[in-house]
Amino acid sequence: MRESRGILTVVSGFSGAGKGTIMNELLRCYPDCYALSISATTRKPRPYEREGVEYFFKTEEEFCRMIADGELIEYAQYVGNYYGTPRDYVERQLEAGVDVILEIEIQGALKIKRDRPDTILLFITPPTAAELGRRLAGRGTESAEVIRSRLMRALSEAEGVDAYDYLVVNDVVEDCVRKVHSIIQNEHSRMHRNLSMIERLQRELEEFVQE
Amino acid sequence: MRESRGILTVVSGFSGAGKGTIMNELLRCYPDCYALSISATTRKPRPYEREGVEYFFKTEEEFCRMIADGELIEYAQYVGNYYGTPRDYVERQLEAGVDVILEIEIQGALKIKRDRPDTILLFITPPTAAELGRRLAGRGTESAEVIRSRLMRALSEAEGVDAYDYLVVNDVVEDCVRKVHSIIQNEHSRMHRNLSMIERLQRELEEFVQE
Repeated sequence: MRESRGILTVVSGFSGAGKGTIMNELLRCYPDCYALSISATTRKPRPYEREGVEYFFKTEEEFCRMIADGELIEYAQYVGNYYGTPRDYVERQLEAGVDVILEIEIQGALKIKRDRPDTILLFITPPTAAELGRRLAGRGTESAEVIRSRLMRALSEAEGVDAYDYLVVNDVVEDCVRKVHSIIQNEHSRMHRNLSMIERLQRELEEFVQE
Repeated sequence: MRESRGILTVVSGFSGAGKGTIMNELLRCYPDCYALSISATTRKPRPYEREGVEYFFKTEEEFCRMIADGELIEYAQYVGNYYGTPRDYVERQLEAGVDVILEIEIQGALKIKRDRPDTILLFITPPTAAELGRRLAGRGTESAEVIRSRLMRALSEAEGVDAYDYLVVNDVVEDCVRKVHSIIQNEHSRMHRNLSMIERLQRELEEFVQE
């Protein structure tokens, strides 16, 4: 009873919430269910990065043309480089029935939700502020000032989070991965994604009655 | 990260969809998670029925007073008897953090959703109209006319179903029970049910920054 189209899920969360680990584990545990969206960027590739795997590498001119032609579902500038989500790759996966996962910050996520209300917004958080503080403090080698600025950034990262659909606590990684998987799979049972099944059932019932 | 309050879930579905079996199995498999709402009725108790277990038995006068005093979250008349859902029992369970399940038809369900938007509406259906037809036909002892009227009733039972939150297919009972359980549990991760956790995290982060 799975409808054919995939679902786009945007994952955000505090730095230090473990988003990267969760997403890698999600793809490792359920490789047939999910595709990670691949970003376009004007940043120079690092030695190990492959075109179309880690990123689609673009010149600034190419990137600006993609913006102008509406080829990106969102984009942002960060430390002098552009990053964006190509519409084409996402659309092809969704049409093939694959659920697409996209990791971006809240402002981009809210923009996508406005354009595509069917998108699921999922926010990942450590269980407590103390735990978040410990993760941001890293291995204890950072200065108080660095930790303070990371905490400030975490605070700003939560602005707008009340517009998200789900809050998932990352306490034990495997539990969190199972939870995220289960949330996305259950979204396939949402009534608005299954109206065609209801219509088909009603049509078939009417045919029975007329027989 | 479970918020303390329980969630009210209304289960509806075609006659013949297997709602009763699903709900009994749900309570048997996860006895600590769920309470079935107990209806009040003006119908006479059958020999095996116990007050406060199968039903709260009321005189018509008592029932009408409950309606007048707003003590029912919904009620309906069926074959000359009143049936309704006492608010008090549901509220006490929800406050104790127990998820409450209520089986009623669509019109009552939509009324509850209007009054309590936080309610989850879940519609259970057999996988196909042919399968529904087989289940309605029973053991083949029913007349064509009886089956026809059941099919007609099934058709009317789906009126308004597009306002439901979830459509769950009952093909294999155990799968369906697991699905219903997982949907209700994931609803606890909905952002609007966890805003107090986010607020607490933000407050604690602010305290860290100020230290």
